[in-house]
Amino acid sequence: MEVSSFLTSFVSYLLVFVVLMLLFSWLSRSPANEVVYYPSRVAKGLNRQGLPESHGPLSWIREAISASEEDIVAMAGVDAAVYLIFLSTALGILVISGLVLVPVLLPVAKTDFNLSLNKTATFNVLDELSMANIKERSPRLWAFLISTYWVTFVAFYFLWNAYSHVSKLRAAAKSNADIKPEDVALLVRDIPPVPNGQTRKEQVDAYFSNLYPDTFYRSMVITDHSKARMIWEELEGFKTKLARAEVVFSESKTTKSPEGLRPKNKTGFLGLLGEEVDTIDYCQNKIKELTSKLEAEQKTTLREKQLNAAIVVFNGVPAAAAAAQSLQARTGDRWLVSEAPEPREIIWPNLAKLSYERKVREIAVYGIVFLTVVFYMIPIGLITAFTTLDNLKKYLPFTKPVVDIGVVRTALEAYLPQIALIVFLALLPKFLLMLSRLEGIPSQSHVVRAASGKYFYFIIFNVFLGVTVGGALFKSFKQIEKNPNSTISLLGSSLPGSATFFLTFVALQFFVGDGLELSRLVPLILYRLKRKFLCKTEKEIKAAWAPGDLGYATRVPNDMLIVTIVLCYAVIAPLIIPFGVLYFGISWLVFRNQALKVYIAEYESYGRMWPHMHKRILAALVIYQLTMIGYFGVKKFLYVPILVPLPVLTVIFAYVCHSRFYAGFKHVPLEVAAAVAAAHKGQRIPNLTALFAAFVPLCLVRPSSQDDNFDDAEEFQDAHSQPVSRSASFA
Amino acid sequence: MEVSSFLTSFVSYLLVFVVLMLLFSWLSRSPANEVVYYPSRVAKGLNRQGLPESHGPLSWIREAISASEEDIVAMAGVDAAVYLIFLSTALGILVISGLVLVPVLLPVAKTDFNLSLNKTATFNVLDELSMANIKERSPRLWAFLISTYWVTFVAFYFLWNAYSHVSKLRAAAKSNADIKPEDVALLVRDIPPVPNGQTRKEQVDAYFSNLYPDTFYRSMVITDHSKARMIWEELEGFKTKLARAEVVFSESKTTKSPEGLRPKNKTGFLGLLGEEVDTIDYCQNKIKELTSKLEAEQKTTLREKQLNAAIVVFNGVPAAAAAAQSLQARTGDRWLVSEAPEPREIIWPNLAKLSYERKVREIAVYGIVFLTVVFYMIPIGLITAFTTLDNLKKYLPFTKPVVDIGVVRTALEAYLPQIALIVFLALLPKFLLMLSRLEGIPSQSHVVRAASGKYFYFIIFNVFLGVTVGGALFKSFKQIEKNPNSTISLLGSSLPGSATFFLTFVALQFFVGDGLELSRLVPLILYRLKRKFLCKTEKEIKAAWAPGDLGYATRVPNDMLIVTIVLCYAVIAPLIIPFGVLYFGISWLVFRNQALKVYIAEYESYGRMWPHMHKRILAALVIYQLTMIGYFGVKKFLYVPILVPLPVLTVIFAYVCHSRFYAGFKHVPLEVAAAVAAAHKGQRIPNLTALFAAFVPLCLVRPSSQDDNFDDAEEFQDAHSQPVSRSASFA
Repeated sequence: MEVSSFLTSFVSYLLVFVVLMLLFSWLSRSPANEVVYYPSRVAKGLNRQGLPESHGPLSWIREAISASEEDIVAMAGVDAAVYLIFLSTALGILVISGLVLVPVLLPVAKTDFNLSLNKTATFNVLDELSMANIKERSPRLWAFLISTYWVTFVAFYFLWNAYSHVSKLRAAAKSNADIKPEDVALLVRDIPPVPNGQTRKEQVDAYFSNLYPDTFYRSMVITDHSKARMIWEELEGFKTKLARAEVVFSESKTTKSPEGLRPKNKTGFLGLLGEEVDTIDYCQNKIKELTSKLEAEQKTTLREKQLNAAIVVFNGVPAAAAAAQSLQARTGDRWLVSEAPEPREIIWPNLAKLSYERKVREIAVYGIVFLTVVFYMIPIGLITAFTTLDNLKKYLPFTKPVVDIGVVRTALEAYLPQIALIVFLALLPKFLLMLSRLEGIPSQSHVVRAASGKYFYFIIFNVFLGVTVGGALFKSFKQIEKNPNSTISLLGSSLPGSATFFLTFVALQFFVGDGLELSRLVPLILYRLKRKFLCKTEKEIKAAWAPGDLGYATRVPNDMLIVTIVLCYAVIAPLIIPFGVLYFGISWLVFRNQALKVYIAEYESYGRMWPHMHKRILAALVIYQLTMIGYFGVKKFLYVPILVPLPVLTVIFAYVCHSRFYAGFKHVPLEVAAAVAAAHKGQRIPNLTALFAAFVPLCLVRPSSQDDNFDDAEEFQDAHSQPVSRSASFA
Repeated sequence: MEVSSFLTSFVSYLLVFVVLMLLFSWLSRSPANEVVYYPSRVAKGLNRQGLPESHGPLSWIREAISASEEDIVAMAGVDAAVYLIFLSTALGILVISGLVLVPVLLPVAKTDFNLSLNKTATFNVLDELSMANIKERSPRLWAFLISTYWVTFVAFYFLWNAYSHVSKLRAAAKSNADIKPEDVALLVRDIPPVPNGQTRKEQVDAYFSNLYPDTFYRSMVITDHSKARMIWEELEGFKTKLARAEVVFSESKTTKSPEGLRPKNKTGFLGLLGEEVDTIDYCQNKIKELTSKLEAEQKTTLREKQLNAAIVVFNGVPAAAAAAQSLQARTGDRWLVSEAPEPREIIWPNLAKLSYERKVREIAVYGIVFLTVVFYMIPIGLITAFTTLDNLKKYLPFTKPVVDIGVVRTALEAYLPQIALIVFLALLPKFLLMLSRLEGIPSQSHVVRAASGKYFYFIIFNVFLGVTVGGALFKSFKQIEKNPNSTISLLGSSLPGSATFFLTFVALQFFVGDGLELSRLVPLILYRLKRKFLCKTEKEIKAAWAPGDLGYATRVPNDMLIVTIVLCYAVIAPLIIPFGVLYFGISWLVFRNQALKVYIAEYESYGRMWPHMHKRILAALVIYQLTMIGYFGVKKFLYVPILVPLPVLTVIFAYVCHSRFYAGFKHVPLEVAAAVAAAHKGQRIPNLTALFAAFVPLCLVRPSSQDDNFDDAEEFQDAHSQPVSRSASFA
């Protein structure tokens, strides 16, 4: 890739970004768009209160910077705050590394003229600024070697501080928050078969009131409510339809004739076939019918479809925290307990899976992921090979006349490879989320973490190694065949060739990606279209602008890819550091804005993603160190062994961080549980009944009592035990 | 080795065993020897009550067989019972395997005449009964292949039952026993530095009464009492000396003169040099002096030498069990808790070691063990090479005239290699125990388990692999150099050559080893000598016959070696199975006898050794399976891949056993804790003060109050917190 095409991409990306930012500041000022640009504030009833008056297109930046971490936690939850800490940690590492690397290494590299010695090779001004321009065995390599150490220690410093900060943040947020259902509850799985003469409920109650006579409050046996859920969803569908039909009817009344025009629809396939009926009457009938069907199914479900899992509620936070960490039964495959997930993120069908089955599923899923990671290599390799223009002309000769036009050529060279890659990556996350669900994981946030890990493996192996080493694979397949152990030196020697590719890749990501994110053009257009053509009721309008989740599962691995790329090139081609700084800087600003004004957390895991992020940054650091060892080897530098302690140090650092901080993420420390209890000691004892009721799936709440207190529906006591002690104590 | 020399060893070992057994039945009948043959009963005040009257030399066998497991647990504790279960499991595996293998495989092997085809090779009748006598690619190998599966599944069956049985036994024993100090206590390590204005005691008390306001009873800060211990030991020495001198004095009074002869001694080196003094006066002065010195040192220790560890006592068993399994602090390197060890087995100096230091020590110790295991290979290899007579003659030609005498030759061939090996192995255990102690392990029983594991690695690598593959190493060093990956086929091909060596090795172990164990000749002689020449006071006599512990650390790995040997040869040379059956059968009988009458458990770990035993039998099984794959490969059998699932199945079996049973060994399940509490609910609340006082090291108990209630010594409250709540509840 030539410098001109690199500049073309860069300038056009920058233009896109500026246009998107201007669009954003223009569109977000219109009150009609408030629900698109401030949905989380609208949903919380805050609208734009408390925000400083916006003046000028850059006011959002001031607002984003001036917000404190408490504001972020209050608006978007701990998980969003932790994501921002991740971005700022990466930013910090790159800024401090770059402060030394850029001013020192660029001149050192520029003035060695290794590349110009080799007249046959093509190179550009960017390559001249990289380590490729240093002669073999040159003493100048010492500067690069010391820089390798510098980057590592800067990373250690920032990572340690970040882990410590997140750990405190997590503990503080848990202690300060209101008591949530999951704080006093336990998920029990692998309950042994019901003994004769007992119901499942009696079995669970007897077991836990024996072990926790003072603190056990009540239990809820998990049921297989898939059928009830189906009926409930159908019912909800008809309710929406009815509300919509009523709005249509009343609108027609005012405009055309005083009686109005009763809406009609066909009952067959997609409303296109079958008998035509009056929608309002039809829906009302259907609702009546489904309501009684649902009630019958609810009774059957609660009575006959009880599974071998339960939610157990305690009367205090410390009691639940201690119980979740203790071994209940003598054998480790019965009565397995874990912290209860948040009610809204429970994956019900997974709860009843036995521990051995879960293990088998996990192994099978990892097998599939392994195959996916390995065999995706083939299409990615093909894409990389094809999307160089010379190959395109060679294999698809009919494209030659088009490609040879100057402007088209530059444009294609600039965008084609990156766009191909990005489109390709968009296909995968759903598949990985589905696979993770199949493992038998009980909660959605855990599924997201698991999928995110798989996506990280995928992205490192296929995008990073695929583009760098994969390119080399095409060049020197025979060489690898001869000596398969030379992967490290291969990595070292093939990296510099892809430096400019990754420069543009990073630039595309932050300018276009963050620009689109900030401007919210897609949600805006979708909202406007829905509003105009589809939405009739208030509920439908609200659903049209309802803000989503941050989208961890794909966002974090993509950021990790950038971390890996920038770290690996940091010393080889230090010019990438400013791009990395821009990426994480702009992302940090944009997502602070989005966290404050747009996204609403679907669930709160109190930063449980952090240990994974931390581990993966360290993995990237090890890849970087191995790459450097390989590349110094390629440069025939005699002092390469000086770098060998680096990966060892990184492993030790990872171990120390893990043993110091990880336990507090895996379990709720009793210190924290005691702090929660202390914070609520003076206050009214929270309503345990309501906390308990939060775990009842919506489709099992009796239709007639949906808005009433759950406890009134006495029929539902079948699967729920009687409260043993209502005197909640928090000690 | 020829058949004649094999028979020589066997017959002579048998004779030794019969003689020892007769000696035992003759000696044990004498009442004077009661304290040697029934010491655990004497110590418990039972003497021979309850035992049937002994008639004939084999009555002990009847007694051993008729005893129930409860008797064993009552007399020698759960650990001894678990050791017997281990022996009976090995026995069961071998008996049931042998029932099929011996009648089927021996005739199949005998009638194939592979060895006689090769006229140059020397072989004997034992080799003819082994798989070595089967021709390559013979269909007869199917019988051996199916036998390989049979042995594996028999092992699975017995191991599963044994694990399940031990798990139940452990839970039942814990539930039935009285409440012990360690049941209500917690060991806390890595306590952070004392905050300003607080004492260590206040810090610990504040922390735990915050986390456990209802169940925390009292804490004891660990002190560095090494100096107090030294003074205390000196004091005890003088007390013994005084008692002894008084006996000598009173004896001299009655026999020679009415005033008697006051004993005298010199105060210098070993009582040989220096001024001569009157022993009684001297000791009395010294005791007075040391007592006040001890009291002063105790005060200093308790006030100034407090360390960063503590014992925390709760007012109930379930509270302590749950607390020991929970994360206390937000960071995982502070306030680390674990179940408290039994007071008598605590290794005080290790308690204050920080978690990171422990990790570093552990890694360093494993490095040393690795080096030991690898470099012991050299002397063992030399011994094996030298102890074949041909080598002896070759390298030490002057031995030739002696060695060539027929009787000497046979005797040397029969005993020399085994004795060399056994002597060699006796040097190691102390070293490994010391290494394990250095790891920072808090309890003696844990040190024994750790040392036993190291000894197992050692014994497998050096004795088993050393003798088999090591022999081959001498034969075909060049072959291995060329192809280092051929270890499995090397194992397969070199095993049959050592079969007869191991036959005699096993025979020596059970006939001579168990014979000596049963007859207790060494303890008897030592006791008689001490009694005659050294013991003067009652206390000294008691110390002379006091029974010891079972000696797990070396006994279990030695048994494991036999398990490994017999399993590996079970199919190759099925003749070894009867020897294995004899070994485990006789060991089982002898140790049942010893458990009932001799040994007293120094501490009780409730069978925590079992998971290690189980894991190591499975390791032996995998070695056996790999050996078989290698040996079938040597026999050029085409269906070898049929054996490949076996190691995989073994790993799965190990995983399932681990996830089902192991947790219950690592922690006290709350089910069990609740059962303990329930068992004591009706009874008087146990004396928490006494349970707490049990943790005070003897050298810190005020001399004047040694026999009083600990609580009266108010000075000692410095390091011990005030009881917070004395109303013990067991729920």
